[in-house]
Amino acid sequence: MRNLTQDNITQAVIARFADTPDPRLKEIMTSLVQHLHAFAREVRLTEAEWMRGIDFLTRAGHITDDKRQEFILLSDTLGLSMLTVAMNNDKPAGCTEATVFGPFYVEGAPEYDLGADVANGAAGIPCQVRGHVRGLGGEPVPGAQLNVWQADAEGTYDVQRPGLAQPQGRGVLRTGPEGEYHFKSILAESYPIPHDGPVGDMLEATRRHPWRPAHLHFMIEAPGYETLITHVFRNGDAYLDSDAVFGVRQSLIADWVRQPDGSYLVEYDFVLNPVSEGA
Amino acid sequence: MRNLTQDNITQAVIARFADTPDPRLKEIMTSLVQHLHAFAREVRLTEAEWMRGIDFLTRAGHITDDKRQEFILLSDTLGLSMLTVAMNNDKPAGCTEATVFGPFYVEGAPEYDLGADVANGAAGIPCQVRGHVRGLGGEPVPGAQLNVWQADAEGTYDVQRPGLAQPQGRGVLRTGPEGEYHFKSILAESYPIPHDGPVGDMLEATRRHPWRPAHLHFMIEAPGYETLITHVFRNGDAYLDSDAVFGVRQSLIADWVRQPDGSYLVEYDFVLNPVSEGA
Ligand SMILES: [Fe+2]
Ligand SMILES: [Fe+2]
Repeated sequence: MRNLTQDNITQAVIARFADTPDPRLKEIMTSLVQHLHAFAREVRLTEAEWMRGIDFLTRAGHITDDKRQEFILLSDTLGLSMLTVAMNNDKPAGCTEATVFGPFYVEGAPEYDLGADVANGAAGIPCQVRGHVRGLGGEPVPGAQLNVWQADAEGTYDVQRPGLAQPQGRGVLRTGPEGEYHFKSILAESYPIPHDGPVGDMLEATRRHPWRPAHLHFMIEAPGYETLITHVFRNGDAYLDSDAVFGVRQSLIADWVRQPDGSYLVEYDFVLNPVSEGA
Repeated sequence: MRNLTQDNITQAVIARFADTPDPRLKEIMTSLVQHLHAFAREVRLTEAEWMRGIDFLTRAGHITDDKRQEFILLSDTLGLSMLTVAMNNDKPAGCTEATVFGPFYVEGAPEYDLGADVANGAAGIPCQVRGHVRGLGGEPVPGAQLNVWQADAEGTYDVQRPGLAQPQGRGVLRTGPEGEYHFKSILAESYPIPHDGPVGDMLEATRRHPWRPAHLHFMIEAPGYETLITHVFRNGDAYLDSDAVFGVRQSLIADWVRQPDGSYLVEYDFVLNPVSEGA
């Protein structure tokens, strides 16, 4: 423990975690130290670069509040979020795929009846959303709780607009007897992730754009099924092949169909994975 | 870019950094993504664990201010700081070794004449500190700027005491004509790093203690020499073999000698590395 060098310090740090009572925590800390050190060693991180890293994390921490989550943006833009989703949602063929949660979910969104307008005053072209929630065997899932959230016509979520009296563009609904759902909202548009903070600086310095293709967020919960966190993406969007957070799945792309009255209609059916026996 | 899986997402993220104009930034981001993903893949990080990581970083950001630096504590306790120091301070034999900077340095500390009392009212047993600053060839280094900082008898740095009118236990001095320095201060004591935040929670969950062996911090700057950031550690301290931040070097340990009047004396000579020609 004295005279640690760049060659033996990693083992010394790992040894310090030897008494961790929770074996999973011990496994995680051991792996984290190994990979963190391997990164620093591989690039031969300088002290000035280390300090820039400390400053980056500090700025990320300070811009984060109950409405803004810079660490999720960082994880999203480094592909860590989608990697984690992919590893934990290896579902049977036929199930709706999962994608990133994102930083804009809010607990306790208002509850609506089927058919209601969840836009609740958010600006945008009217859009009808409908479909069914079924299980993997094709069975309807009545009473499933659908949490939906989306940005408005300017690509802004309600939580990004200070001083709004009520939530806009988000709500909780329950599927009907045949597993059906339908609600009114507004047309989803592509939007840039918040890029006025350190993550935005990183994107600019690396010549990456901050845009996400237009999408609706869904979180669907029903007893007996795995919770599904996913998006439905709008077909034809310019950013489907360069999503800033790597979240696009081909199977999650749907057509937003323009109606004679100028409004839009999108239909999407979700297929939930039953909770496995004994799980 | 659609249908990324846990097997191909890492390459897709790295490809997104292809247009980074600064080659060093590109190298760092590429390596960071590879090792971050390798960690997540190795432990098969769950979504709940990912969320705990986001919460940890958020708490670290929120407890960090101009007096408290939780991200440096995190880097220190994971050995990343000492690894970075070791990689960047591979000096010729005979030079004083470097160690971690730590989170308690403050710019603009008060300037003192040689012989002054830098404790400036901090509680503790009086202690005299003296020695010489020399170059690797044995030449004295007059006019070198010595930045010194230390904790008080309770193991607390001035910046950890809200409402202090003046800095205590820190100061800037200049060596005399023969490279000599001497100042009064207080006896250094072992102290726990701040452990009332997320880093403290991590230490507790992994059964690691937060203690650092007693030490004085020095940053020594002189034209023609590499800046030296180091500590002098107090011989006999119970934590020399288990420093919470992995900073101890055998060559940095000195004897604090008790004097007849009950005060202490510590002597330490620093040897600076000349800036190499053409550097
Ligand atoms: Fe979104
Ligand atoms: Fe210290």
